[in-house]
Amino acid sequence: MTPDEFRRHGHELIDWIADHVEGVAERPVQSAFEPGDVRAALPEHPPTAPESFDAVMADVERVIVPGITNWQHPGWFAYFPANTSYPSILGELMSAGLGVQGMSWITSPACTELETLMLDWMLELLGLPDRFHSTSATGGGVIQGSASEATLVAILSARHRATNGDVNRTGDTTTLVAYSTSQAHSSIEKGLRIAGIGTDRLRIVPHDETFSMQPDALRTMVEADIEAGLTPFFVNANHGSTSSMAFDPTPALADICADHDIWLHVDGAMSGIAGLVPEFRWVNDGIERADSYCTNPHKWMGVNFDCTTYWTADRAALLGALSILPEYLRSSAAESGAVIDYRDWQVPLGRRFRALKLWFAIRCEGVDSFQATIRDHVAMTQHLAEQISSDSRFDIVAPHPLNLVCLAVHSDSTDRANELTEALIQHADTADFHFTRTLLDTRVALRISIGARSTTQVQVDAAWEHLRDVVGRLV
Amino acid sequence: MTPDEFRRHGHELIDWIADHVEGVAERPVQSAFEPGDVRAALPEHPPTAPESFDAVMADVERVIVPGITNWQHPGWFAYFPANTSYPSILGELMSAGLGVQGMSWITSPACTELETLMLDWMLELLGLPDRFHSTSATGGGVIQGSASEATLVAILSARHRATNGDVNRTGDTTTLVAYSTSQAHSSIEKGLRIAGIGTDRLRIVPHDETFSMQPDALRTMVEADIEAGLTPFFVNANHGSTSSMAFDPTPALADICADHDIWLHVDGAMSGIAGLVPEFRWVNDGIERADSYCTNPHKWMGVNFDCTTYWTADRAALLGALSILPEYLRSSAAESGAVIDYRDWQVPLGRRFRALKLWFAIRCEGVDSFQATIRDHVAMTQHLAEQISSDSRFDIVAPHPLNLVCLAVHSDSTDRANELTEALIQHADTADFHFTRTLLDTRVALRISIGARSTTQVQVDAAWEHLRDVVGRLV
Repeated sequence: MTPDEFRRHGHELIDWIADHVEGVAERPVQSAFEPGDVRAALPEHPPTAPESFDAVMADVERVIVPGITNWQHPGWFAYFPANTSYPSILGELMSAGLGVQGMSWITSPACTELETLMLDWMLELLGLPDRFHSTSATGGGVIQGSASEATLVAILSARHRATNGDVNRTGDTTTLVAYSTSQAHSSIEKGLRIAGIGTDRLRIVPHDETFSMQPDALRTMVEADIEAGLTPFFVNANHGSTSSMAFDPTPALADICADHDIWLHVDGAMSGIAGLVPEFRWVNDGIERADSYCTNPHKWMGVNFDCTTYWTADRAALLGALSILPEYLRSSAAESGAVIDYRDWQVPLGRRFRALKLWFAIRCEGVDSFQATIRDHVAMTQHLAEQISSDSRFDIVAPHPLNLVCLAVHSDSTDRANELTEALIQHADTADFHFTRTLLDTRVALRISIGARSTTQVQVDAAWEHLRDVVGRLV
Repeated sequence: MTPDEFRRHGHELIDWIADHVEGVAERPVQSAFEPGDVRAALPEHPPTAPESFDAVMADVERVIVPGITNWQHPGWFAYFPANTSYPSILGELMSAGLGVQGMSWITSPACTELETLMLDWMLELLGLPDRFHSTSATGGGVIQGSASEATLVAILSARHRATNGDVNRTGDTTTLVAYSTSQAHSSIEKGLRIAGIGTDRLRIVPHDETFSMQPDALRTMVEADIEAGLTPFFVNANHGSTSSMAFDPTPALADICADHDIWLHVDGAMSGIAGLVPEFRWVNDGIERADSYCTNPHKWMGVNFDCTTYWTADRAALLGALSILPEYLRSSAAESGAVIDYRDWQVPLGRRFRALKLWFAIRCEGVDSFQATIRDHVAMTQHLAEQISSDSRFDIVAPHPLNLVCLAVHSDSTDRANELTEALIQHADTADFHFTRTLLDTRVALRISIGARSTTQVQVDAAWEHLRDVVGRLV
């Protein structure tokens, strides 16, 4: 492709994206394709000669667009939000165009320094503690590709500290024990498994009726493990769990962690972004005593995936766990200690210039725009929750402090309620709405996550009317 | 940012990228900034009101562009190549614009199916074995973010198979032993460390004078470890090592691995892409007996980072190691077994639509274009190596079968040679060239990696003349 062709097709693609984004409400939220349909519609073998961009775009229209699930759709009530924004898309474009590698400071100084600044900006915007600031004595932040990677990095840091670094040499993790409720994201178990902490040593701590960890139970379990010669090393505190939007009592957990030198990680992947809004800053309660924290601008803030902000108050543990310096990566800047080499803050070596999209979004979209969206989503959710509460055919089965409601069809029998709720879930999705299911202890629930930037009261009202219609046919 | 503003600024940015790419040779390859310069040139605190895109672009010109290292520069002889191409940039742009999540098939069917197809296309283009094909009995491929992540996934798969899956429950890795030469990429040690295999159980297998693993030494070490009650579980074979472009004798290693049921991973991160060219397909020797393999289209093929192609012949081990199915991610498509959920093939949960950039590059840039580039780079490297060989002031200190030459200043004393080579390295970089240093056993070397798509004979000649000038002043 010549530079002139790139200009022409680039302009076309920009316009195509604007048309796609502005028109997404007209498309079905989910693809109607069956497994194998996309593949069957494309050539099995690569072309032997270059093709025109127009030919590719024709295939995009014919196969790709009807084959995607529209996460930007206003009827997106499924999983969690994964918002983009126009400035963020341009930031990703610039990153691709510059084509730099940010593995070390020296391999692109601006890539590292802008990222450090963005982490400090986000700290300020979210109202997070100074102990995570890049200029603090022992802390700092980094962009991770996902909350799963942030969790893994937290676990590896904790593992390193709990073994005084011996794990790097011995690999012996057999006495380490981790703690979480059943509401933790799957990445906690996955990260532990990767780090060599088997499920035998992941303690599921009981939760109360709000799905919040019971601190007394945690203390009892920790003490029993110590008694048994084991080493409690990692506690995960949910600040807005995926299934149930549960918040664990982090200040009480921090007391226990402090007593026994346990790493306290707070997972605010989805809900932590609510800290952008002053009146929701209670989401940060206890984080000032955590060893590490993550939240995702790529969920509720309009910075397109991948952009997880991760902070630690103990960067020495992180560097101890992850830094390796081969000869071909040495630099005098790094050896002087004057710079950060972010390759030592993450699992991969290479890294894209992801700070650009955060910088573009904060500057061009504006924080007030993100605040307004969060306030709207929470208001719509609370209004919906009131409506659900006043309809005796439904039960709300989890707390709903922000933008997620979990509902079940009411019945005096849990089995019958589950049966009816499964039936509701079966019919909840339409071309205009997409919901997901979960299981909260023994109760099946329909999750309504209100978090797409395009969602307005119109879609929420329509979704509620639709769900009432479905239930009307069931009970 | 309104849709109209996005269109306008998007067009501007496309043109800006074309100007930047076409003009990159006029810029210095490295930034002249000192540590802290970028940060000092930007506001310490986020803005309270939205700013114009023009204001951001002014800061990009003022701070970001002078602050980057230009990996796309024709004088890029450092580290390894990290090429972009215009169609690939457009693929990344489309991925950002669509804003879909490819964690499961159901969360965007086209994202999964196009990726599977691209892995099969790459298999065919590279001349790799059918055992990795998506329709094979036990294999398949996936795009990883980096070779480091591919390596980690290989190690986790191997760990799972060697423990019959017990590791997921017990976390006990204390008897597992891994093998590699000193030439392995740092991600081997890092991946092992993450997986709980300490450096005590990473055996550095002796290499010969071409930095190639000695199979007899491997067999002896493996047998000694078995004798000692340990479990050899993972052998890493380099196909083009970072420091020295060494190729390990994979067919011979495969015999040993087969005898003792050891996972054989082949790391062709940089050099494997040479398989696009029929006459360089010797880079694949032995891969038909490997359990896993990776190479990076984001290095030598013009697909911008991140795009590592990873294949395994044992997807059951991979899924055993990495799949976790929480309630909120269940789908009937997945449970029927008819689809791939790529979240179970990688460390993170979330994933971008990275197959687009590979698809766009293969179709619009054309494989013949990538083949021509590889042939040119190899020819320029071989010509340079001849010139170096005929200049008695230099020694070539590693094999140079493809596009890397490692040279040292000649001296009968290694200490003196190292001293002179360090001095050469000190003066090798200019505004027009960037090289990196390495250490090969006891010998300091200057690496000349010829792999940027913009590099022509002009820059190679100029670089060689410059290096001779520097050495002329040293000896």
